[in-house]
Amino acid sequence: MRYKVVFQPSGRRGYVDQGKNLLQAARDLGVDIESLCGGRQSCGKCRVRIEEGSFPKDGIHSEKNNLSPFTSEEGKFINIEDERLGYRLACEARLQGDAVIYVPEESRGEKQVICKAPRDMGIEINPAVKGYDLQIAPPSLSDPKADLERVKFELEKRYGLKGLGVDYPTLIPLGDTLRAAQWKVNVVIWMDKEIIDIRPGDFKSLYGIAIDIGTTTLAGYLCDLMSGEVLAMDSLMNPQISFGEDIMARITYTTSHPGEGLKKMHEQIIQSINQMIVNTTRQISASPEEVYEMSIVGNTAMHHFFLEINPEFLGKAPFCPTLQGSMDVKARDLGLKIHPCGNVHVLPIEAGFVGADNVGVILAQQPHHADEKTLIIDIGTNGELVIGNKEGLHSASCATGPAFEGAHITFGMRAAPGAIERVRINPEDYEVSFKVIGADQWSEQCKPDEIGARGICGSGIIDTVAEMFKTGIVDKSGRLLGTIPSSRIKKAEKGYEFVIAEARETAIGRDITITSDDIRQVQLAKGALYAGIKVMMEILGFKEINRVILAGAFGNYIDPEKAMVLGLFPDCEIQAITAVGNAAGDGARIALLDREKRREANDIAGGINYVELTLCKDFPDQFALAMHFPHMRDPFPHLRGLIPEKMINL
Amino acid sequence: MRYKVVFQPSGRRGYVDQGKNLLQAARDLGVDIESLCGGRQSCGKCRVRIEEGSFPKDGIHSEKNNLSPFTSEEGKFINIEDERLGYRLACEARLQGDAVIYVPEESRGEKQVICKAPRDMGIEINPAVKGYDLQIAPPSLSDPKADLERVKFELEKRYGLKGLGVDYPTLIPLGDTLRAAQWKVNVVIWMDKEIIDIRPGDFKSLYGIAIDIGTTTLAGYLCDLMSGEVLAMDSLMNPQISFGEDIMARITYTTSHPGEGLKKMHEQIIQSINQMIVNTTRQISASPEEVYEMSIVGNTAMHHFFLEINPEFLGKAPFCPTLQGSMDVKARDLGLKIHPCGNVHVLPIEAGFVGADNVGVILAQQPHHADEKTLIIDIGTNGELVIGNKEGLHSASCATGPAFEGAHITFGMRAAPGAIERVRINPEDYEVSFKVIGADQWSEQCKPDEIGARGICGSGIIDTVAEMFKTGIVDKSGRLLGTIPSSRIKKAEKGYEFVIAEARETAIGRDITITSDDIRQVQLAKGALYAGIKVMMEILGFKEINRVILAGAFGNYIDPEKAMVLGLFPDCEIQAITAVGNAAGDGARIALLDREKRREANDIAGGINYVELTLCKDFPDQFALAMHFPHMRDPFPHLRGLIPEKMINL
Repeated sequence: MRYKVVFQPSGRRGYVDQGKNLLQAARDLGVDIESLCGGRQSCGKCRVRIEEGSFPKDGIHSEKNNLSPFTSEEGKFINIEDERLGYRLACEARLQGDAVIYVPEESRGEKQVICKAPRDMGIEINPAVKGYDLQIAPPSLSDPKADLERVKFELEKRYGLKGLGVDYPTLIPLGDTLRAAQWKVNVVIWMDKEIIDIRPGDFKSLYGIAIDIGTTTLAGYLCDLMSGEVLAMDSLMNPQISFGEDIMARITYTTSHPGEGLKKMHEQIIQSINQMIVNTTRQISASPEEVYEMSIVGNTAMHHFFLEINPEFLGKAPFCPTLQGSMDVKARDLGLKIHPCGNVHVLPIEAGFVGADNVGVILAQQPHHADEKTLIIDIGTNGELVIGNKEGLHSASCATGPAFEGAHITFGMRAAPGAIERVRINPEDYEVSFKVIGADQWSEQCKPDEIGARGICGSGIIDTVAEMFKTGIVDKSGRLLGTIPSSRIKKAEKGYEFVIAEARETAIGRDITITSDDIRQVQLAKGALYAGIKVMMEILGFKEINRVILAGAFGNYIDPEKAMVLGLFPDCEIQAITAVGNAAGDGARIALLDREKRREANDIAGGINYVELTLCKDFPDQFALAMHFPHMRDPFPHLRGLIPEKMINL
Repeated sequence: MRYKVVFQPSGRRGYVDQGKNLLQAARDLGVDIESLCGGRQSCGKCRVRIEEGSFPKDGIHSEKNNLSPFTSEEGKFINIEDERLGYRLACEARLQGDAVIYVPEESRGEKQVICKAPRDMGIEINPAVKGYDLQIAPPSLSDPKADLERVKFELEKRYGLKGLGVDYPTLIPLGDTLRAAQWKVNVVIWMDKEIIDIRPGDFKSLYGIAIDIGTTTLAGYLCDLMSGEVLAMDSLMNPQISFGEDIMARITYTTSHPGEGLKKMHEQIIQSINQMIVNTTRQISASPEEVYEMSIVGNTAMHHFFLEINPEFLGKAPFCPTLQGSMDVKARDLGLKIHPCGNVHVLPIEAGFVGADNVGVILAQQPHHADEKTLIIDIGTNGELVIGNKEGLHSASCATGPAFEGAHITFGMRAAPGAIERVRINPEDYEVSFKVIGADQWSEQCKPDEIGARGICGSGIIDTVAEMFKTGIVDKSGRLLGTIPSSRIKKAEKGYEFVIAEARETAIGRDITITSDDIRQVQLAKGALYAGIKVMMEILGFKEINRVILAGAFGNYIDPEKAMVLGLFPDCEIQAITAVGNAAGDGARIALLDREKRREANDIAGGINYVELTLCKDFPDQFALAMHFPHMRDPFPHLRGLIPEKMINL
């Protein structure tokens, strides 16, 4: 008897023998669960959660009693409340039915390698919160002015600050603080208009955190608001992934669980952000209370979930969000555990699914000030496109699907240690050389049993398919040719597969291959991207693109040349293609550090021309043409010399 | 260890932990025992009697030594005879076995009759929140503007409202509301600048609540914000009374219980106000969520407790409050259960203990616009004074003590049913006629055993002492003369006492008397008031007062003539004395209904000249002179004809 099991958030799935425990099942399917004690029920590190419900896509009905009964061993590590939520120890719970298992971040064996590292940018430092040192005259019988009025008087006298409001919680400790500090304090003021803290003594640090809420990954950057320096960063998987791996699935979850669904989605994001607040402040031995300002970017759905706003109407025509402009919300109203009077600045969204993350990208890349015809592709779980220059910008959202992130690919995986990230194929003998994340050397320089490949991540997939196309293993139409004289070509269930890593080079004991199906997934993703770009170029009357910017954490790893070989975007000079990493996060950081840029963000978001690609008549035809490598008709003169001329239109 | 306890005559019974005192036990079991001092062994109001014997029905054997030994504290209030009968102070006697407790009539808590009824005033209606009806065009593919931007667009187009902010929680249900209401909504806007609710359909009611936080009593007025009408009202005892009956006692409690003490005080006020919100909205079958604005007045200590601000520094020189100006706080930040986006406007305070309640009184009475030299006496647990006219106002706080509220008076009680509130004494035979609260007729028109007097409340005390003085039972110096030929004069432990109600006319089975000590308490209270007024008149250079306004719930009941006979204030025309009831509450209502008056309130509070009476060198001398009835030296020509001329200076 075998049962179907899906592990979230990785999405790994497969059949597992009855009676196996979840830790063994996870290992069989290449899911890494932390287990210090090696499955002896003594470390409690392998906590997982059983998801309940029907998952039609996977043909699974999962429930708690599809597993062996909860044991007293588990009770040592899992309290009654968590038990009710479905938590189990993976090493103790045994399968007796189909199951969907969520592996929480802390139980995951390997930290994802997420390049959401901040870039050095010339950000003007003009934060929303500033601190002012004061030495205040103590009250006397002849001058018994109230404490707050005394502070305000001194702020006006010394700094010319007038008409200041005060956020209520600031008042609660005021009398004690002033006296304990002998009337020497540092006053924290938001936007020159509201007193949000009065701290004893001289100036102390003021911290802010910029957050990028991705569909799959959350990234947080803790900054010194005075220097602009990034002091710490952290990233976590978006825990909402257990409700669906893409945006539409999550929206469907909320609409099919009225009230409760949205609340859960919201709370999970808030909890994760609170976790990042703790993680980043701990890195610099600061307290979360010293964080006074946050900025938030995310696509429209993430933006709505973050604000606990029903995303239902985003998902159906006319695709109308609840709010478009930026929003300032007190951290305490959102349950975010920074300073209770701290403000959370949520950047504006554009339209449809093109959200505050794209506004952040534009803020960071400034295409609206460029002369060149600029194309920005932000590749995440969704693809977002911006085309234009100082004459005007157009944006669109493109349903690329998560193939570029390694999902829906047979051996796809996140960019974690063991993932194949770079691939070369020798055009003579079709021999493969690859590099895995975490290794210093390419595969041919290592002993096979030391390589330990576990799967292929997004950049590895693009590399592989581009190389397969260049070497003729795959033709223009995307067909994997069974006629290639190589032992690496194998017959698969459907069509063929090409072996990238042999079983002995892997940690999973099986060949890691790319199948005909996988290539189809890549075609669908890149076709959607290219078609979207073409439709927008036509609207703008652009004949060519002068500059291509690849944004997104993943964008940083893509080899620009290979991306053009596959035809992710129209032909342009190779040197004009740049990868800028997590530009959305950069934009969040800009808005955190320079409050003037918040106005610019609203101008960008309000002024951009949003194109709803699903309504463009031309899109399906363009999509069909763009399924070819690099394209069925469009010329790619800049690929000359890079791939055989017979394979490209010149 | 738990013991069984039965309270008689209510028959309430239950188990109580060993070591709890009887007052706590009573509260646990829902038995209301009077306790003005809040269990601090200082008021003697919580006398109960231990019943001895076996009570088989309850399975109890009760005896005196099932309680902790009788203490010297109790000896101050219980004489040896009553001690033998089993009388104890409930706040002092602790359980160490089963007990049957009898709660005598006079110790039973009864709901106070509080005249905090609103007065009709010509209030301009210009509330802080207003509602705007909108019919909004639904979005389409050619106009997919976001919901909020759509609302704002229509508000600007139809009402010219620009640059509106939005309070975050308003966004959460917005998308659903607009669609369910088919885009016809009523938008609630605060101060023309912040959207705080978007309600389906046409205009609905907008309610507001004005709250007066008295040291002893809380009063709430639910108003229709559009008509200004008072739709419902409610009053409750200030629950803080269990931490001390006066302000200083409560401040001492908070300083001696750092952290926890203040938190308790604050939470108790918030809970009570929430109770009043429920009570008043229920009266008109409305929901608390329909209340969008509140206004709050109270003395400085109540103001600080309400805002959870440490009142410690109010209580010691230089008597400095934490804030003086008005404050707007979101109801949700205070835990007040009105509409979550509703605003709470806390009126400004003046200085020292003269708080927002006094600002309310001034707002309602407008002495700052008067030509006449006006004196306002607001008599509550503290006395507040305002003297002045359009040339300027002076204010002061006066430690009258709670004698005028019936505390520290042998048979004093709150103005509850059974309290003697009016007294006449026949100058020929010294026979007494009195009226109790809840009765329609005077005592001589009732059968003695139907009167059921339980004690004397504030207005009854003033009546009694004024009548005793007029009839010569008490002399100018306050001495109760034992030489008066009346059987009502009796020798007391100290000096004499005068019988107001004979035992058969009472519900407590004992004579209700006024003692020499009680008269002393009245002298101290009225002396402080008069001295305060004199000191302020001197500062102002006022030779006389043209108008006297008696404010405060209790002020409404005082007979103005009797008050002048006793010399609560300097001589003036009897017709120029008016009682205006709860003017502080009126002021709260004005600030609730007319937002322009909030600015006026800040001008009043910021511009008033506060006099710290405890620092006036002249005060002790004036106090000594003012202890006499009506005064040792000052002439009272307007009393001519009202009392024998030999008793007054003319």
